[in-house]
Amino acid sequence: MKPFSSPSDPGDPGLDPPSGDSAAGPRSTGGEVPDRLSTSVGLSTGLFDDLLAAGPVRAAVDDRAWLRALLDVEAALARAQARLGTVPQRAAETISRVCREHAFDPATIGAGATDAGNPVVPLVAALRATVGPDHARYVHAGATSQDVLDSAAMLVARRALGPLRDDVERAATAAARLAETHRDTLLPARTLLQQALPTSFGLIAAGWLSALDAATDRLTLVDGQALAVQLGGAAGTLAAFGDDGPRLVELFAADLGLAAPSLPWHTDRTRLADLAGALGTTAGSLGKIARDVTLHAQTEVGELAEERPGGSSTLPHKRNPIAAVTVIACASQAPGLVATLLASMTQEHQRAAGAWHAEWRPLRALLESVGSAAYWLRVCLDGLRVDAVRMRSNLDLTGGALLAERVSALLTQRLGRQQAHEIVARATRHSASGAELADRLAAELAGPSRVAAAPGRAAEPPSAPAPDRAELTELLDPAGYLGAADQLVDRALHEHAARRRDPDPEVTP
Amino acid sequence: MKPFSSPSDPGDPGLDPPSGDSAAGPRSTGGEVPDRLSTSVGLSTGLFDDLLAAGPVRAAVDDRAWLRALLDVEAALARAQARLGTVPQRAAETISRVCREHAFDPATIGAGATDAGNPVVPLVAALRATVGPDHARYVHAGATSQDVLDSAAMLVARRALGPLRDDVERAATAAARLAETHRDTLLPARTLLQQALPTSFGLIAAGWLSALDAATDRLTLVDGQALAVQLGGAAGTLAAFGDDGPRLVELFAADLGLAAPSLPWHTDRTRLADLAGALGTTAGSLGKIARDVTLHAQTEVGELAEERPGGSSTLPHKRNPIAAVTVIACASQAPGLVATLLASMTQEHQRAAGAWHAEWRPLRALLESVGSAAYWLRVCLDGLRVDAVRMRSNLDLTGGALLAERVSALLTQRLGRQQAHEIVARATRHSASGAELADRLAAELAGPSRVAAAPGRAAEPPSAPAPDRAELTELLDPAGYLGAADQLVDRALHEHAARRRDPDPEVTP
Amino acid sequence: MKPFSSPSDPGDPGLDPPSGDSAAGPRSTGGEVPDRLSTSVGLSTGLFDDLLAAGPVRAAVDDRAWLRALLDVEAALARAQARLGTVPQRAAETISRVCREHAFDPATIGAGATDAGNPVVPLVAALRATVGPDHARYVHAGATSQDVLDSAAMLVARRALGPLRDDVERAATAAARLAETHRDTLLPARTLLQQALPTSFGLIAAGWLSALDAATDRLTLVDGQALAVQLGGAAGTLAAFGDDGPRLVELFAADLGLAAPSLPWHTDRTRLADLAGALGTTAGSLGKIARDVTLHAQTEVGELAEERPGGSSTLPHKRNPIAAVTVIACASQAPGLVATLLASMTQEHQRAAGAWHAEWRPLRALLESVGSAAYWLRVCLDGLRVDAVRMRSNLDLTGGALLAERVSALLTQRLGRQQAHEIVARATRHSASGAELADRLAAELAGPSRVAAAPGRAAEPPSAPAPDRAELTELLDPAGYLGAADQLVDRALHEHAARRRDPDPEVTP
Amino acid sequence: MKPFSSPSDPGDPGLDPPSGDSAAGPRSTGGEVPDRLSTSVGLSTGLFDDLLAAGPVRAAVDDRAWLRALLDVEAALARAQARLGTVPQRAAETISRVCREHAFDPATIGAGATDAGNPVVPLVAALRATVGPDHARYVHAGATSQDVLDSAAMLVARRALGPLRDDVERAATAAARLAETHRDTLLPARTLLQQALPTSFGLIAAGWLSALDAATDRLTLVDGQALAVQLGGAAGTLAAFGDDGPRLVELFAADLGLAAPSLPWHTDRTRLADLAGALGTTAGSLGKIARDVTLHAQTEVGELAEERPGGSSTLPHKRNPIAAVTVIACASQAPGLVATLLASMTQEHQRAAGAWHAEWRPLRALLESVGSAAYWLRVCLDGLRVDAVRMRSNLDLTGGALLAERVSALLTQRLGRQQAHEIVARATRHSASGAELADRLAAELAGPSRVAAAPGRAAEPPSAPAPDRAELTELLDPAGYLGAADQLVDRALHEHAARRRDPDPEVTP
Repeated sequence: MKPFSSPSDPGDPGLDPPSGDSAAGPRSTGGEVPDRLSTSVGLSTGLFDDLLAAGPVRAAVDDRAWLRALLDVEAALARAQARLGTVPQRAAETISRVCREHAFDPATIGAGATDAGNPVVPLVAALRATVGPDHARYVHAGATSQDVLDSAAMLVARRALGPLRDDVERAATAAARLAETHRDTLLPARTLLQQALPTSFGLIAAGWLSALDAATDRLTLVDGQALAVQLGGAAGTLAAFGDDGPRLVELFAADLGLAAPSLPWHTDRTRLADLAGALGTTAGSLGKIARDVTLHAQTEVGELAEERPGGSSTLPHKRNPIAAVTVIACASQAPGLVATLLASMTQEHQRAAGAWHAEWRPLRALLESVGSAAYWLRVCLDGLRVDAVRMRSNLDLTGGALLAERVSALLTQRLGRQQAHEIVARATRHSASGAELADRLAAELAGPSRVAAAPGRAAEPPSAPAPDRAELTELLDPAGYLGAADQLVDRALHEHAARRRDPDPEVTP
Repeated sequence: MKPFSSPSDPGDPGLDPPSGDSAAGPRSTGGEVPDRLSTSVGLSTGLFDDLLAAGPVRAAVDDRAWLRALLDVEAALARAQARLGTVPQRAAETISRVCREHAFDPATIGAGATDAGNPVVPLVAALRATVGPDHARYVHAGATSQDVLDSAAMLVARRALGPLRDDVERAATAAARLAETHRDTLLPARTLLQQALPTSFGLIAAGWLSALDAATDRLTLVDGQALAVQLGGAAGTLAAFGDDGPRLVELFAADLGLAAPSLPWHTDRTRLADLAGALGTTAGSLGKIARDVTLHAQTEVGELAEERPGGSSTLPHKRNPIAAVTVIACASQAPGLVATLLASMTQEHQRAAGAWHAEWRPLRALLESVGSAAYWLRVCLDGLRVDAVRMRSNLDLTGGALLAERVSALLTQRLGRQQAHEIVARATRHSASGAELADRLAAELAGPSRVAAAPGRAAEPPSAPAPDRAELTELLDPAGYLGAADQLVDRALHEHAARRRDPDPEVTP
Repeated sequence: MKPFSSPSDPGDPGLDPPSGDSAAGPRSTGGEVPDRLSTSVGLSTGLFDDLLAAGPVRAAVDDRAWLRALLDVEAALARAQARLGTVPQRAAETISRVCREHAFDPATIGAGATDAGNPVVPLVAALRATVGPDHARYVHAGATSQDVLDSAAMLVARRALGPLRDDVERAATAAARLAETHRDTLLPARTLLQQALPTSFGLIAAGWLSALDAATDRLTLVDGQALAVQLGGAAGTLAAFGDDGPRLVELFAADLGLAAPSLPWHTDRTRLADLAGALGTTAGSLGKIARDVTLHAQTEVGELAEERPGGSSTLPHKRNPIAAVTVIACASQAPGLVATLLASMTQEHQRAAGAWHAEWRPLRALLESVGSAAYWLRVCLDGLRVDAVRMRSNLDLTGGALLAERVSALLTQRLGRQQAHEIVARATRHSASGAELADRLAAELAGPSRVAAAPGRAAEPPSAPAPDRAELTELLDPAGYLGAADQLVDRALHEHAARRRDPDPEVTP
Repeated sequence: MKPFSSPSDPGDPGLDPPSGDSAAGPRSTGGEVPDRLSTSVGLSTGLFDDLLAAGPVRAAVDDRAWLRALLDVEAALARAQARLGTVPQRAAETISRVCREHAFDPATIGAGATDAGNPVVPLVAALRATVGPDHARYVHAGATSQDVLDSAAMLVARRALGPLRDDVERAATAAARLAETHRDTLLPARTLLQQALPTSFGLIAAGWLSALDAATDRLTLVDGQALAVQLGGAAGTLAAFGDDGPRLVELFAADLGLAAPSLPWHTDRTRLADLAGALGTTAGSLGKIARDVTLHAQTEVGELAEERPGGSSTLPHKRNPIAAVTVIACASQAPGLVATLLASMTQEHQRAAGAWHAEWRPLRALLESVGSAAYWLRVCLDGLRVDAVRMRSNLDLTGGALLAERVSALLTQRLGRQQAHEIVARATRHSASGAELADRLAAELAGPSRVAAAPGRAAEPPSAPAPDRAELTELLDPAGYLGAADQLVDRALHEHAARRRDPDPEVTP
């Protein structure tokens, strides 16, 4: 699939795409949605959509948006052919204007889709009828339905990825703020849901930030390189375009601001799979952060709360982290939908008997769900309340045992691994506080147990004196056992800031 | 989950559910959709829905249908409480009437869902405002949002399964007709897409029929037993209902025509998983049949054609089996959606933080997709054109080699397995017709090769004379090598007919 | 697929299957694994298998078990044909003996599988070579590879479902004991991971019990009815068996203790899909319970602990609930594997070109993973430590707010819904204990706020005097607000006990 | 996740990794598998593995390979710490030697994994026991189990991706040869399994080639950038390493030839998701090609055959495309496994309670399955037999109708779209050959129908004379209607050749 020709200015001043559609460069959305279509079709929302398809992505992938994209593709095809001279300029202008201004009805087009198995055929019929007999023959000339629908799918994806990425980036900004603010806020790290070691909430937020930045990178990569026009005709030979096929693909791609593929990709669905993969990965990262928030927000943990927690009709005390909960609900749609899109890659011959049609709904649902997850995570993190006092008191719940690793390491160095492990295990068993643990450890270290080796086995030789009470107290201060947490926070913040200075980095996977 | 109490007549003549809701027995849909709601909300259709969410199921699972179900549940709860005497009869009547007649707007309710994380909270608020201050306190009394939403989901499933099953059954009827009509229509069976042995198209259709009947059984089983009300309050203790909880669950279930569960199932999602499993299995069976149709309809095979094949805008000769293609597209949505629903079973404590909310969209999409697949398969099979001549000519393509097994078996009996295999392999290698194959076999059998054993290994002793030319001709007649095909067709037809006499058999998986 | 003929005694005393294989009835495993094969092949275990494929199911689905099943099927086929008289009794006896006693090597058979695309072809060749030239022709006579492999898959499933179900039932027994023991152990119910209302740990365990019993029902249903022999020959016509085909299927099924299907099911994969669905549902129920355990076991919650929690090499204080964690890991394999099996239902013509072969590994992995999840959940629940003191103290964390619903309901009854909600919301906001909450509520109820109505809106009329301090104290006692918890525990225990008296109930889905 | 520090030579000549492990650069596999381990553990193969886990990847991901990777990671950690001076050089040398030479037993390690929930804990215990008391404390010093297991997973992936990519590249080479050889071999393109237009088999193969090259690019991208060491300790703070943590990560990564991540990624599973996505996409592309082969190889189509088609035990004429069938079986495992890995991204806090452990089996199965699919596709394409005569005769099956688009386009230009469509539709309806179609078209064009317009609608004006018989004959020659097929073949071949000159291109998605 490499190298993509970069979409270049076709250099023909005679037939500009409508303003907004010129859209130089691969970042363009290929044209704003014109007024007529927007107002002629009501935004359909419903019982669940404001929760589960929240945010700006839904409107970017709904029927109007698809219809807009299909029309933009037909218009771009006519304009590109006009540049080549195979369609009269006046015809291309008329087609462009009708595509831009005429209010086609998605429901009518959709009803006609059942005859041919896709909505392009009735749309082309309606378009031909509208442009009139002089220009009808230049509508959709030489293209096959899949050319138009696949290219439109790429436009829809382009237009959805913009706001989706915006929400991911805004969530990242909120995570960066949390990482910066809370680099000294201590709390227990938890492994297998058990307290393990001290960490800082700043480092936790830095981990979130790093994952969100990685998600943005993936989406940017896919947006810039995987989204390409499809044009090949029914067989992928470009036969209906005579000798001009390959040149036409370039002009067509440049007009839409999409990449021009080396070969038609009608049954090579790598591009959609790449898009699905990037969205699935993004969903996973969003879901992980939201799960963390719901766990930190548990009544018994109480470390985090949302700015506007959800209430309950009957339980006035509830502080439900609704935004995080909704992120989880939305993100968990992704694995199944990605699987459906991957399974659909097995497409027969030059157009699949079903697997192609199988892509349309999961592609939309995946964009919607991941977009909604990003929206709600942004809402969640933007207003996240951090209870540093509770974090610290949770750290003290285990009576200093979280520092066991540190004491253990030092004792191992000085007494050998086995004795160290046994002493620490005994001392931590019943301690209620860090001070008590220091006492117990001091007692253990003074006692006789430290000289006993396992039977039949030489004791590892002590290499240094055991720590005294003061050293133990210092060892048991969690603030002194954060390792590189601060450096790691700096690193995540630095990399995040660098991204903002250079908005289109050479991304890495 | 056993035994379900069977929904019984609560026997209280004082407060009938609205006509249509009385609906005794588990087959009831719990009430027809009243006019007000139906007309107040426009049916939203779109570019892809007439193809990919075709048929009657879409309307049974759309926002209006969900809103209807939510209102039916609230009304049933008030009526059941009135029967117990914990809600005044007048209040229950008013609530019932408002639920039935008032035009609530899904979009408004949906917009309010973001505060609490589900649409029940705003719906209850709107309902309370509408019934007025005297009755407000009796709306949703003691219930939690999940009680209402889960019960409504079961109602929605009930109302969707009816038309879905109808379409599966109509497809089965068409398959039965094909099995009956074509029991003597010969064609090649194909394994690994290679011709293998003769079979009859009647047997192929009988196999389809049997799978469709099995799918109907599964859907019936789920409909009759898995679909139960949920009522437990926030903790599942029924605490807000005082001592009346268990009795209330019975009355509530009876009113809605759903099963009454032994225990609240708020975080035991077995019922939804059972439903998902039955739908996933159904999708697989629908998809298999449709794939067969597309393969039989290939230009090079030409054995089947749809009544109204799809045309092409540019290729006037195309006869695309659009209905079958669409079945495949719809059916292939199921595995991923089932996986999402199964993965959502891991629900935390007494209400999940996300996994519950994650069910709503895939449940709808799964019902819609499988419903659409059933609709299109019914369309496909209803008008299926069978080209018996082409089937027979395809059978002759391999010059009689399809009967090799039969000849081989006979020669094995008479000459031993190894010689038989070698003779047949040589004879089939170049034959262009059954007659030529008979000649070659006769020549082989007369030749010297049949006495040679593998070196160092005793030949298996011939136990009877080799067949002569006449016997070979008979052996090579495909009509004589259909085994039990006819009996199997009869069996499938008989079992199908028996189902129609006894519409609610004790189903088997 | 109905009615299955019930596997009946073929009534031929002349040719008994080897002891253990007679196994009348659908519960039979169709024969114990004979010694020769068991000892000739070492049990392959590995780095991850003792964790992720733990318990007895792994050995029931490994290569030896598959080879055993394939050989049992070949032997049963020969015996069934001997009963019909189409195979000499001596041949059948020899084939049976060789299948039972000869040590075939899975690796050798597997290496030969690449020529024909399945292991049956090389196995049949090895079997023919071993039985010698006189009997070779009676090995696998008339069958196709898929007949043998599909029937063997059903045997493998049968033999795996036994121990799998045993572990589910033992986990259910442990849950029953917990439900019985802890019916009066109070703790907070949690919705969206927030404390909601009081409940009893007995009711939580009863919910687990009910889900586990439902899982057992599903597995029993599938075991008893979905597991059937496959026999049809390459085309599914039974042509190679002459007129005896249907009778042979009955005898073959009876010999193996599997159901006899109405029609060959070579490309109707409903049976496998049913099995997959039941396993997927079981996995979901196991995973839900394990997730609950990990949440209750959190350091900050501390309500449950495993008997033998996992330690850590470096953190001696860790009490990791390793068994529950492993249940989650194993159970989460199921949705994807079920999806693969469902997607594989779309099988072409009379044998699929890939989708059939695609079933073998996910079927094994699904049985192994769900078996392992059941094993670990049994381990987890068997030794579960319940800290009733911690449960009670967690209940007090919110200062009585969990009883807000109860107070709210009573006040609603007496003062109207809106006032009640406001009073309770104010009172719960800052209370640190139940006693303090009672004080605050009493103060609120004595204060002036209770007479103010929302502006422009008539106050709902108070219908009774507000509760006094004593009534409030009683209202705030969590033990008094458990609703039907006790009845529900009884019901779950009663239904569980009833199952044990009647081990094969008419199960419900 | 950017920028990765590039793994650099740590520049310490005093402690070289063992030969084979030095392996500078990210392409290194981090060391060949030493002899001791290889020979001490028998390669476990089985009934299905030679088919479904074929090729070299299986051995790269089996238990021995995992154990090797775990030991390599422990050794690299000790060496890296020796470079920092925190572990004595002699200890690191001893640990390295023991890791390289000692024969640890996977089964024993695996049996010990159940205590702690992963195999690292027992492996470390065994390693410490083997190196003796003087060095034991330096084994695994400061690391947590997840550090070692995640880093080992990356090594395993690295070592599996090499041979996997080799097979993909060899399949691409075979596709390139087919594209080159058959650029002039005509056959029908098929859409929805119906013949549509002429194309060349060279272009079909070029499409395969392009998809395979794209798959290689993805795998290379993931291999080079996503595969990174994990090192963070239990909390991800690197606390146990004192101030040296970040530097240690660099040295550790350099030693293993993996990337050094900015932050520990213990619960940011982006890297695994990227790997899963690339493998899932690869599987889809492999599966698509194999499905095409099975369709071209159908008895009725007969255009392609495998070099060594699979036979049948009973049907000597079968020519089963077993390699392609097996590709489909293997590739269809991927979507479900990718979904499991994506769903596992939702990992709690600093180590997941189950979701981490859930990754190990599907990661292995995914690599194995995709590796096997690549292996079999290479086998399939290497020996693919192309029947150009059959391709051409299939093209003639529809009597020239495939050229309808071409004639239609010309007539549209000259007569208007509607008349053109009608004339062509009438003429193609019954033609049996291209010559007959030319006759019919000539007759139609001479007839009166061409002047009739649709009622009430102006005819589109003819703009040029209709073609004569000679022009029609030329129009109906398929070789003249291949459009840019040849250019597209050249483009795919050129890009493929360019990749071989520059083996590590800046890849595009």
